[in-house]
Amino acid sequence: MAFVDQPLKTDTETPPGATREHRPGKVILVGAGPGDPGLLTVRAVERIRAADVLVYDRLIHDGVLAFAKPSAEKIYMGKESGHHTRQNEIHALLVEKARQGKTVVRLKGGDPFLFGRGGEEVEYLAEHGIPFEVVPGVSSCLSAPLSAGIAVTHRESSSSVVIVTGHSADGHEDRADWQAVARIDTSVFLMGVHNIETIAQKLIAAGRSPDTPAAMIQMAYCDGERVVMGTLENIAAEVRRANIQPPATLVVGEVVRLRERLQQLVALHATQKEIGG
Amino acid sequence: MAFVDQPLKTDTETPPGATREHRPGKVILVGAGPGDPGLLTVRAVERIRAADVLVYDRLIHDGVLAFAKPSAEKIYMGKESGHHTRQNEIHALLVEKARQGKTVVRLKGGDPFLFGRGGEEVEYLAEHGIPFEVVPGVSSCLSAPLSAGIAVTHRESSSSVVIVTGHSADGHEDRADWQAVARIDTSVFLMGVHNIETIAQKLIAAGRSPDTPAAMIQMAYCDGERVVMGTLENIAAEVRRANIQPPATLVVGEVVRLRERLQQLVALHATQKEIGG
Repeated sequence: MAFVDQPLKTDTETPPGATREHRPGKVILVGAGPGDPGLLTVRAVERIRAADVLVYDRLIHDGVLAFAKPSAEKIYMGKESGHHTRQNEIHALLVEKARQGKTVVRLKGGDPFLFGRGGEEVEYLAEHGIPFEVVPGVSSCLSAPLSAGIAVTHRESSSSVVIVTGHSADGHEDRADWQAVARIDTSVFLMGVHNIETIAQKLIAAGRSPDTPAAMIQMAYCDGERVVMGTLENIAAEVRRANIQPPATLVVGEVVRLRERLQQLVALHATQKEIGG
Repeated sequence: MAFVDQPLKTDTETPPGATREHRPGKVILVGAGPGDPGLLTVRAVERIRAADVLVYDRLIHDGVLAFAKPSAEKIYMGKESGHHTRQNEIHALLVEKARQGKTVVRLKGGDPFLFGRGGEEVEYLAEHGIPFEVVPGVSSCLSAPLSAGIAVTHRESSSSVVIVTGHSADGHEDRADWQAVARIDTSVFLMGVHNIETIAQKLIAAGRSPDTPAAMIQMAYCDGERVVMGTLENIAAEVRRANIQPPATLVVGEVVRLRERLQQLVALHATQKEIGG
C-alpha cells in the first residue's frame, strides 16, 4: 500500500466558465489558536474574512469572530463538557451550508487536527463530496507552557513530549497507557482541570517521582491567564486552592523549572537596576 | 515551592520620559511556522515588521524575511546538521545587538520552544538582563501531518501523541525511551530522515507492529511538498526510494489511514461528477 504522492488537496476553485451562482460551496476548518486574535495565522484571518458562514466552538473569542464581514452568519455550536451528541448536528450543518454554495469556516480552538474531532469532520465532508481545506493553528499544548516561560523540550533534560487529553483520566473512557506516558520526559495534558487529581495519581502510580515539577496554566494568552506551580504530589491541591477553571493546560517534567529560573533572573536584574547596578 | 502567579513577562516598554536613544533593546523569539508565510501568526508578522535586526535559521523562507523593513539587518545563523558550536555565537550576537538598543527578532522554524534550543536562548538573555518576549508558532509536529490529511488524534484510535526528535536515534545521543514511545498511540518524529531506518527498527523492536501505518511528509507547505506512505516495515525503503530530503516529518500510527480514506472519497466523488452522478 506504500505510494508516493502529492499532498492531499481537494478542488476548491471555481471551475472555468462557472458562474458565481453555480460555484460549489466549501468548508474550511480553521485552527483559531489559544484565543488571542494575534495568534491567528495570516491565512486564518484571510479565511475568516472571506467566510459567508462561521461555525464556532465554546473557546473562540470575540476578537477572532470580529474579523468576519458584517454579513457573515455566525453560528455557535459549542458543546458542554462531556456532551457529544451535538457532533452529528455540526456535521449536518456544515454540509447543508456548503450545499447552499456558501463558504463555510469551521473555527476550532487551537489546532483543528489535535483532539476536537477535526479528522471526523473532514471525513464526513469527504463522504458527502464537499470540497474542504484545513488550516493549522497554534496549539495550546506548546503555547500555554511557552506563555508561562516553559519550553517543553531541553537539550539536557527532555527530548520527547507526550500530549494527552485530560479526558483520558475519565473512568469510563480511560485508554491512556499511563506506564508509557510516565516514562516520556515531558507530558502535557489538555482539558485536565476536572481530572487533575486522577492524572497526578496515575502518573505517580506509574512510577513518575512525586517530586516532578508540574505547572497548570489557565487561559493562556487571555485576560484570565494564571499559572499555578507545584509538584506531582501537590499540584492538584494547588489547582483547587487557586480555583483554576477550564480551559487550562498541565505540563509535567523537569522542563517546568525553566519558569522559576527565568523569574529569578528577571527579579535579580530588576533589583540591580533599582540600586543602580 | 508551589505558588500562584501571573504569566511571565519582562518589561519591553519604553519607560516614561526615556528618549529613543536610551531605550533598552530587546530580543523577541518568533516561531516562523512550517515555512509558508501564510502560516505566520499575525503577531509574528507585526514583530518581524518592527525588527531592526533579524537573526534567522536554515529553514526560514524568503517570504517570511520579506515582511522586514528595508533597513533591517538580516543575519543568517543557520547550523549545519550536527554542528552545535554556533549556538554560543548566536547567544553573544543577540545580547550584543540588544545592548545597542536594537529590536532583535530571532526567527526559529516551527515553534520556538519545541526543540531548537529556544529555552536556552531565553535563559541566556535573562542571565544578561536583556528584555525578551517569545511568540509561539505553528509546529510541523501537527501541521505536516495535517497537510497530508492526517489528524494526529482520533476519538476511536488515538488519544495521545508523542513528539520525538529524530536525532534521538543517533547512536551517541539516544536518550529516547523506545519502549514507552512505542506504546503511545501516535508518534511524530521531527528531523527524522537521516535516521528513518533506526527509528522504524527501534519501534518494531519495542513491540510496535510492523504493519503499523507510517507516513513521511517532506517540506510541508512548501513547493517541494511530497508525502510517502507505507508501514513501519517498509517506510524506510520507501523514503529512500523516493529520495525524500530534510526537512521532513514522520508520523506513525493508525491515524495515518485517514489520508487514504480521504483520497479514496475525493477520487470517488470526482469520478461521480465526471459521469454526471
